[in-house]
Amino acid sequence: MAEKRVWLFREGDASMKDLLGGKGANLAEMTNLGLPVPPGFTITTKTCIEYLSNGEKMPAGLMDEVVEALRDVEQNMGKKLGDPANPLLVSVRSGAKFSMPGMMDTVLNLGLNDATLDGIIKLTGNPRFGYDAYRRFIMMFSDIVLSEEYPALKKNNFEHIFDALKAEVGAKQDTDVDAEGLKKLVGQFKEYFKKTTGRDFPQDPMEQLTMAIEAVFKSWNNKRANDYRNFHKIPHDLGTAVNVQTMVFGNMGDDSGTGVAFTRDVATGEKVLYGEFLMNAQGEDVVAGVRTPVHIDEMKKVNPAVYDQFAEIAKSLEKHYTDVMDIEFTVEKGRLFILQCRVGKRTAAAAVKIAVDLVNEGLIDKDTAISRVEPNQIYQLLLPRFDPKEKDRAKSEGRLLAKGLNASPGAAAGQAIFDADKAEELGKEGKAVILVRSETCPDDVHGMLVAKGILTSRGGATSHAAVVARGLGLPCVAGCEAIRVDEEARFFTVNGTTIKEFDDISIDGTTGEVFAGKLATIDPNIAENKELQQLLEWADERRRLEVWANADYPRDAERAIGFGAQGIGLCRTEHMFMEQERLPIVQEMILAENSEGRKAALARLLPYQRGDFKGIFEAMKGLPVVIRLIDPPLHEFLPAHDDLLVEVTKLECAGNKPEELAAKRKMLAAVEAQREMNPMLGLRGCRLGLMMPEIIGMQVRAILEAAADVKAAGTPVKVKIMIPLVGHVNELTRTREYLEAEAQKVVAERGPIDYSFGTMIEIPRAALTADEIAKVAQFFSFGTNDLTQTTFGYSRDDAEGKFLLKYVEEKILPENPFQTLDQAGVGQLVEIAVRKGREANPSIELGICGEHGGDPESIAFCHKVGLNYVSCSPFRVPVARLAAAQANIAYTGPKDK
Amino acid sequence: MAEKRVWLFREGDASMKDLLGGKGANLAEMTNLGLPVPPGFTITTKTCIEYLSNGEKMPAGLMDEVVEALRDVEQNMGKKLGDPANPLLVSVRSGAKFSMPGMMDTVLNLGLNDATLDGIIKLTGNPRFGYDAYRRFIMMFSDIVLSEEYPALKKNNFEHIFDALKAEVGAKQDTDVDAEGLKKLVGQFKEYFKKTTGRDFPQDPMEQLTMAIEAVFKSWNNKRANDYRNFHKIPHDLGTAVNVQTMVFGNMGDDSGTGVAFTRDVATGEKVLYGEFLMNAQGEDVVAGVRTPVHIDEMKKVNPAVYDQFAEIAKSLEKHYTDVMDIEFTVEKGRLFILQCRVGKRTAAAAVKIAVDLVNEGLIDKDTAISRVEPNQIYQLLLPRFDPKEKDRAKSEGRLLAKGLNASPGAAAGQAIFDADKAEELGKEGKAVILVRSETCPDDVHGMLVAKGILTSRGGATSHAAVVARGLGLPCVAGCEAIRVDEEARFFTVNGTTIKEFDDISIDGTTGEVFAGKLATIDPNIAENKELQQLLEWADERRRLEVWANADYPRDAERAIGFGAQGIGLCRTEHMFMEQERLPIVQEMILAENSEGRKAALARLLPYQRGDFKGIFEAMKGLPVVIRLIDPPLHEFLPAHDDLLVEVTKLECAGNKPEELAAKRKMLAAVEAQREMNPMLGLRGCRLGLMMPEIIGMQVRAILEAAADVKAAGTPVKVKIMIPLVGHVNELTRTREYLEAEAQKVVAERGPIDYSFGTMIEIPRAALTADEIAKVAQFFSFGTNDLTQTTFGYSRDDAEGKFLLKYVEEKILPENPFQTLDQAGVGQLVEIAVRKGREANPSIELGICGEHGGDPESIAFCHKVGLNYVSCSPFRVPVARLAAAQANIAYTGPKDK
Repeated sequence: MAEKRVWLFREGDASMKDLLGGKGANLAEMTNLGLPVPPGFTITTKTCIEYLSNGEKMPAGLMDEVVEALRDVEQNMGKKLGDPANPLLVSVRSGAKFSMPGMMDTVLNLGLNDATLDGIIKLTGNPRFGYDAYRRFIMMFSDIVLSEEYPALKKNNFEHIFDALKAEVGAKQDTDVDAEGLKKLVGQFKEYFKKTTGRDFPQDPMEQLTMAIEAVFKSWNNKRANDYRNFHKIPHDLGTAVNVQTMVFGNMGDDSGTGVAFTRDVATGEKVLYGEFLMNAQGEDVVAGVRTPVHIDEMKKVNPAVYDQFAEIAKSLEKHYTDVMDIEFTVEKGRLFILQCRVGKRTAAAAVKIAVDLVNEGLIDKDTAISRVEPNQIYQLLLPRFDPKEKDRAKSEGRLLAKGLNASPGAAAGQAIFDADKAEELGKEGKAVILVRSETCPDDVHGMLVAKGILTSRGGATSHAAVVARGLGLPCVAGCEAIRVDEEARFFTVNGTTIKEFDDISIDGTTGEVFAGKLATIDPNIAENKELQQLLEWADERRRLEVWANADYPRDAERAIGFGAQGIGLCRTEHMFMEQERLPIVQEMILAENSEGRKAALARLLPYQRGDFKGIFEAMKGLPVVIRLIDPPLHEFLPAHDDLLVEVTKLECAGNKPEELAAKRKMLAAVEAQREMNPMLGLRGCRLGLMMPEIIGMQVRAILEAAADVKAAGTPVKVKIMIPLVGHVNELTRTREYLEAEAQKVVAERGPIDYSFGTMIEIPRAALTADEIAKVAQFFSFGTNDLTQTTFGYSRDDAEGKFLLKYVEEKILPENPFQTLDQAGVGQLVEIAVRKGREANPSIELGICGEHGGDPESIAFCHKVGLNYVSCSPFRVPVARLAAAQANIAYTGPKDK
Repeated sequence: MAEKRVWLFREGDASMKDLLGGKGANLAEMTNLGLPVPPGFTITTKTCIEYLSNGEKMPAGLMDEVVEALRDVEQNMGKKLGDPANPLLVSVRSGAKFSMPGMMDTVLNLGLNDATLDGIIKLTGNPRFGYDAYRRFIMMFSDIVLSEEYPALKKNNFEHIFDALKAEVGAKQDTDVDAEGLKKLVGQFKEYFKKTTGRDFPQDPMEQLTMAIEAVFKSWNNKRANDYRNFHKIPHDLGTAVNVQTMVFGNMGDDSGTGVAFTRDVATGEKVLYGEFLMNAQGEDVVAGVRTPVHIDEMKKVNPAVYDQFAEIAKSLEKHYTDVMDIEFTVEKGRLFILQCRVGKRTAAAAVKIAVDLVNEGLIDKDTAISRVEPNQIYQLLLPRFDPKEKDRAKSEGRLLAKGLNASPGAAAGQAIFDADKAEELGKEGKAVILVRSETCPDDVHGMLVAKGILTSRGGATSHAAVVARGLGLPCVAGCEAIRVDEEARFFTVNGTTIKEFDDISIDGTTGEVFAGKLATIDPNIAENKELQQLLEWADERRRLEVWANADYPRDAERAIGFGAQGIGLCRTEHMFMEQERLPIVQEMILAENSEGRKAALARLLPYQRGDFKGIFEAMKGLPVVIRLIDPPLHEFLPAHDDLLVEVTKLECAGNKPEELAAKRKMLAAVEAQREMNPMLGLRGCRLGLMMPEIIGMQVRAILEAAADVKAAGTPVKVKIMIPLVGHVNELTRTREYLEAEAQKVVAERGPIDYSFGTMIEIPRAALTADEIAKVAQFFSFGTNDLTQTTFGYSRDDAEGKFLLKYVEEKILPENPFQTLDQAGVGQLVEIAVRKGREANPSIELGICGEHGGDPESIAFCHKVGLNYVSCSPFRVPVARLAAAQANIAYTGPKDK
C-alpha cells in the first residue's frame, strides 16, 4: 500500500516539518492545540518528489486521497467545494521544510466559478464582495498557476485591464469601483483569459484544485527556486508540501478584519503584543498599502472579546513554541481564525532582550538563549548609529550626497578635513573630524587615529582606509566614486554640490551613505545594556575558546578589555613606526649605509617603542599580549615611488635647483633599491629580521624593557613575542636564537620577565611543516589573512577590485574568503597545522588573529579544530564571545537544563 | 668483552666501510687481494664515538689493542717502532665512511725522534734524507696534532723559520739546503716547539702515536667537519676511523718515486692508464709543485718491471671494483707499494664512455651503467663550449673583460648588439649576434629568439633574460655589474675598455666570463656521441616516467624531438602575443572599451596564433602537445608604467606638444587601470579568462583550427588545452564549459579533433582540493614554479635578489627551492594532489612542467609520487631521461643481470 500522501491538519504536528513542510506542520500543531485554525489538509513533500521524478504525472490515487480529505473538511465546515448553494472556498499554498522565496506562493478563493459566485453573493448578500473575490481569484490563479506557460497571464496584464476600467468609470482607488464595475471587470478578465489561452477560465473547482496542486509541485523546480537552493546549500530532493485550507474572509464588514502580530515587540523586545490590524480587509489589502493598518491595540477597543481571545492565543503559542511568534489572523464576522504562525524575526536589540527574558520567565534554558541570537547582530549594538528620524529628514531635505562602500560600520558626523595633519590638529582640540581623502596610506594614520570617521573616493573593502578603520572601530565609507576629492584645494564635489573644508558631513559606515550636515548619533552604552551583559556572561560560561583582541594602541587595548577580551592576540608594531615624529628616524634607519648607522637610528626609536608597549601592558594588567615584530616591507616607510619620480623629472626639466634634485635623486635611488615586483611576497616579516637583525633586536629590547618597567611599578606582564611570515623552521630557529640572546641580556639587567616566542602561521609551507616549526615555537597564531592570500594566490589589494567581488557575485566562489574562512582550502591547512603542531609540541598554544577571528562561521571552525583562542578587533569581541559559546553548544550539544 | 676496536688490514674488507671508514676498508680489501699494501691497522669509527662520548678519554684497553696490532706489523716488517737500530715509521690518517674535508688529514714519519733518526741515517746512509724526514715530521705533527691547542704551531710559522734559514745559507729552494742546514733547522724547530708549548717535542713514539690518534678522534668534532656534515646531511654519530700504516719512501733515490694514476683516462674515458709519476719524491713534493711530475707512461721507460706490475694491479683493481680507480702508489728502492685506492672522478664525457664500455666489457650491467652517470653531467655534453686553449690564450692577452652570473650555460660569440630590433634584423641575415642589454623584458624576445647569446648588466639567475635564455637553451651571462651599458649610444664600457656596436664579444654562460673578440666554440653533436645514445637508450628501457619538453616555438619542438622528448608538456601562448608585429594588436585588444572592440582585435590575432600552433603540431607529429592558455597579467603587454610617467611629466613641463601629451596620458591611464600591487597574485591565468573570456575563446579556436588544418594535411594531432592558475573547482568548471562550447563549434565546422582540457596545479588551494578539481580536469600539470612561489610566499623576482640566495648561502634553506623541489613543503602539496586527484579520477594524467621537471633530484620525487611524465626545457630532456631511469632503478632496485 502506498504511503499516506494527504494529512488532515489534525493528523499532523510541529515535528513533521520534513514531510508536511514548515507551514503545514505549524498548522497541524495549532489545530491540535485547539486553536481556531480554518480546517484543511497537507499533501506531503514526498508526493512532490514523486510527481517530479515521475515525469510530472500525478501519482495514481493521489486525487482520491485529496477528495477524501476534502470531504472531511467539507463535513467539518458544512460546505462543499463547488456547491452553488453553500460553496466551500479554499486557499492553496506551497510550504517546504525551509522558507523559500521563488516558489509558488498562494492562490486564494479557489472554488469560485460563475455558479458558486452566485451562491456567495446570496449567502453574504454582498455582490461587491462576491465579484471582488472572483476577479481577484481569476487574476491570482492565472498569474500563479498558468503564467509560466502563458506569460501574458502575468498579474500586471490584468492590472492594466483594471486600470483601464477605473479610468473609464472615473475611479481612483480599487474601492471606488462598485459591484457593477467589478462584474464588468470579471467579464473582461475571463475574456482576456480565453483570448490568451484559447479556452474558458476553468469552471470545475476540482480541475482548479488539481491544476493548483500541480503548479505548486512544479514550482519546486523552477529556476529561481533552484538558484536559491544552490546558493543556500539546500538539498534539491526535499520537495515542497501543498497546503489546502478553508478560506475565511476579513472583508465581510466592520465585524471582520485581518492582521499580523508578534507576541512581543520585535523592535525593542518589550513584552507587549506588537502588530497591525486592518478592519474589513483581506491580507492582500494590507500588502497593497492602500489603507493604513492600525496598531493591534486598536482592536482592543473595536472588539475587546476577540482581542482578548487573540492575546490568549498569542501567549499560549509563545509558551508552546518557547519563542516570540509571528501570527497571521483573520476575523470573519467577529470570529477569530489563526491562519499561520512562525517564529518572529526581530532586531538585534530585541533578540538579546527576548532571549534573556525568556530564560528569566523559565521558557527556555541559557543554551537556547545563547543560540537564539545571531552573533553578528551584537556588533550592531556596539556602534553609534544615526537617529533614523534624523536620517529620514536629511533625505527628504536632499542632503543624501552619495552612497559608497559600507567599509566599516557605525555612524559619525563632523567637519570634513582633507589631510591627516589638520585632522590630527583639530582632533586633539576635541573637534569632531571626518577625514576625507581620495585614498589613505600609512602616512595618514596619525590623522585617522583622532578622526571620527573616514571617507574615501577610491579603494575597496580592504583598502588601507577600510582595514585601518575596522581595526580602530571607526566608521568608514570607502570607494565613494561619486565624489571628486581635490586634496590640494581642500574640497570635494558631488553631483554639483561642493563640500569645503570645515563643512559638516555625516557618514554611515553601515549603509555607505554620505550626508551633508551633521546628523545626531545615538551612542550605545554596552555596560548599560543589562540583557546583553547577561547573555554574554552566560556565553562566557559556555565557551571553550578564549576571546582575545587585536589592538595596536593602549586605547584599543582598553576598549578590548571593556568588551571582555582575555588577551591581545595581535599587537602590530609597524603602526608605531608610521607616526609622524618617528617616520624620519625610521627612514634614516632604512637609508643607513651600514649596521652602525642603522643601530644609531634604532637607538633613537627604542624609547618610543618602549613607551608604546608600556601603555599596552598597563592596560592589559597581566593578561597575555602577543606582539608581532615588524612585518611590512621597508619601502612602506619611504616616500611613494611615483611621486618621487615625478618630482625628479620636474626638477630635471626646470634645471634650477641642483641641490634639491640631488637630494630627491638620492631618495629615489633608495626607494628603487627597496622596490619589489610583488612586495606581498618579498622582503618582509622574518625575512627582514634575518637580513637586518638590528631592527627586531631593538624591538625585543623595547618590549622587554617596557615589561620590566611596568612590572617594577607593580603590574604583572605576560608578553608573547611573535615572529611573522615563517615558512621554514630554520627561519624561526635562527631568529629566535638571535632574539633569545637579546632577551636574556635584558633579563640579566632587569630581572625575570614572563615572555615566550612563537610564530604566525600565514604561509602554506609553515602549515604543511608545522611539526618541525612547533618544536621551536611556544605558540602559533594563524594569520589567516595572509594565509588566504597565499593559499588562493590572491593579492587582496588587487583581487577584490579586479575579480574577487565579481567571483562572489557570480558564485564562482561561495563567499569572500577574506571575510569567511575558506574551510575546504585554507581551513585544511589550519587543520593540518593544528594536528602536526600539537603532535610535535602538545603544550603549544594555538590561536587565530586574522580577520576571520571575528567571523561567527569561522569561529565555529576554530572551535572545531581545537584552537585555544580567537583574536579579533575590539568591537567584535562580544560577537566572538557569543559565537564561541554557540560553537561549543553546537559541537557538544546543549547542556541538561 | 669489549668489541674489537683495532683491525689489522688483513682482517677487514671493502664491505666494512661503516666500521673501518672508506680508506681503511679499501686498504683491507687490497691487502686481502694480495696487493703490496704497506702493512698497518685501522681503529674503528665506533671507537671514535666512544672516545668522544666518554668526555674525550681514551677507552680503557684501546692502546693495548693498538700495541698488539703494532706488534703484528713490526713482526711483518722486521722493524720496531722506536727501535734506534731498525725503527718502524708509520703514517696516521683519519678515514670516515664518507670522504670529509675539514677532518685531520695525515701525519707522516711518526716514530721519528732523536734516537731513531740516527738509526734511519745509519740504515739509509743518507743524513740529508734523515734530517729532511725529521723536520717534516716535527712541522706536520705540530701543525696537525697540536695547532688547535697552540695556534702558533701552525705550519706557516715553521715555514718562516725555514725561509730565514734558507736566506741565511743563500738557498733558493728547499733542495738547495744540505744535510747540515737541515740538521740546524731541526734544532730550530725543536726550540720553537719548546718555546711555544713549554715542553720538549715528544720523543716517545708511543706518546706520539697516542697523541696522533686522539687528534684524529677530536677532528671529527671540529667546526669545519661539523659544518660540512650539516651541509651534506651526513649524520654526526658515524665517527672516523684511524689508519696507522707503515711508512714507505719514494725519496730514497732514483729507484724510488711516487705517483697517482687512474685506470682509464678520466678526461676522455679512453681505456689507457692515466696519471703522473715523480722520481725520488714523496707525495707532498708533488703537491708542493716544486718539480713537475711526468706522465705515468714515462715510468715504463724508467722501470718497466714496476710499470708492468702497476698496470697489472690497476687492471685487477678495476675488475675487482668494477669501476675506474684512482690509485696512489710509492716505489721504494724499486719496490712498488699501493697506498690508497678509490673510485676515480671523471668528466662528463668520460663518465658516459666508461659506463658504456664497462657494460660492453662485461664488468657491469646496464642498470649500474645508468646509475653511474650524474644526469646533470649530460647537460654539459649538449652545449657548445669554447676551446679551452683559445680561452687560455684570450686570458693571457687580457681579453677577459668581466665575470657575471652564469645564468644559462653554453658558449657563444658574435657581434655585440644593443637592441632587439637590430638583433633580429642581423640574426635573420644569418649573423651571429650577442644581445647586450642592461636588462631584458618581454619586448626583447623577438631579438633573443635569433641571438646566439645574451649579456645583461643587471638581474639575477631568474631575471627575464636568464629564464628566457635557459628556456631557449641560449648561453646567458646576467647581472654582469662591471659593465656599463649605454643602450642609446650603443656601447658598453668595462674597466676602461669600450665595446661598440658590431664589435665581437664572446660569453661563456657556464662560467659567467665575458671576452673581447671571437673565441672559437666546439659544437657537440649528440647524435654522433654513440656512447651517449647507447646510455640513453638503456635509460629509456628502464624508466617509467615519460619525458616531455617545454617548448613555445616550432624550433624548440623540433629540438625537443631530437633530444628524445615524448610530447610537449608546456607550450606558453603569451610569448606569441609579444612578437613585434602582434603587440600593437594585443594592446588594441587590451585598450578596447568593450567586448566588441576586443573581439575585433582578437579576430586579427587569430591567424597568427593559428600559424604558431600549426608549426608546433607539424613538428610533434601526433605526440601530445599541452598548450597553456594566456597566463600573465595584461599590463605585461603594455608600455612600462614608469617610462610613461616620465614621458608625460616631461611633456607637461615642455608644454608644447598637446596632442602627444594627450595620447600618452591616455595610455598612462590605461596602464594605471591594469596596474597591480602584486601582479603575481592578481588578475592573470584563468581569472583573466573568466573576466574576459573572448581572449581564451579566440585561443581555443586558433588551437583547434590549427589542429584541423594539420590533420587535414595528413599529420595526426593530439592537443591538450591547459587552463592555468585554477584555485577553486568552479573556476575550472566555468572556464571549461565556455571553452567546450567554442571547441564544439570548431568540431562542428571541421570534424573530430583529439583534444582534452586540463589544468595546472600551481596554487596551494588547487592541490588541497584536487579531488574536486580532478572531476572536471582530464589532466593535471604541476606548475611547480608558481606553486613554490605561493607555498613559500616568495616572489621569485624579488626573493632571489633580496634574500633567497643569502638564505641558501647561510643554510637557512638547504637549497634554492626554485631549482630543486622542496619535498617537505611543495612536495607535500604535490603528493596530496596526486592522491586526491587519482582517487577522484583514476584516469587522470599527471605531469610536471615547472623547472623542476629537469632537475634529477626532483625527477626522482616525481617518479616516487607516481606522475606520468616530467616536462622540461629541450636541452634537459636527455638529463631527464637518465634521471628518470635512475629513479626507477633506485625505487624498484636493479634488475637481475
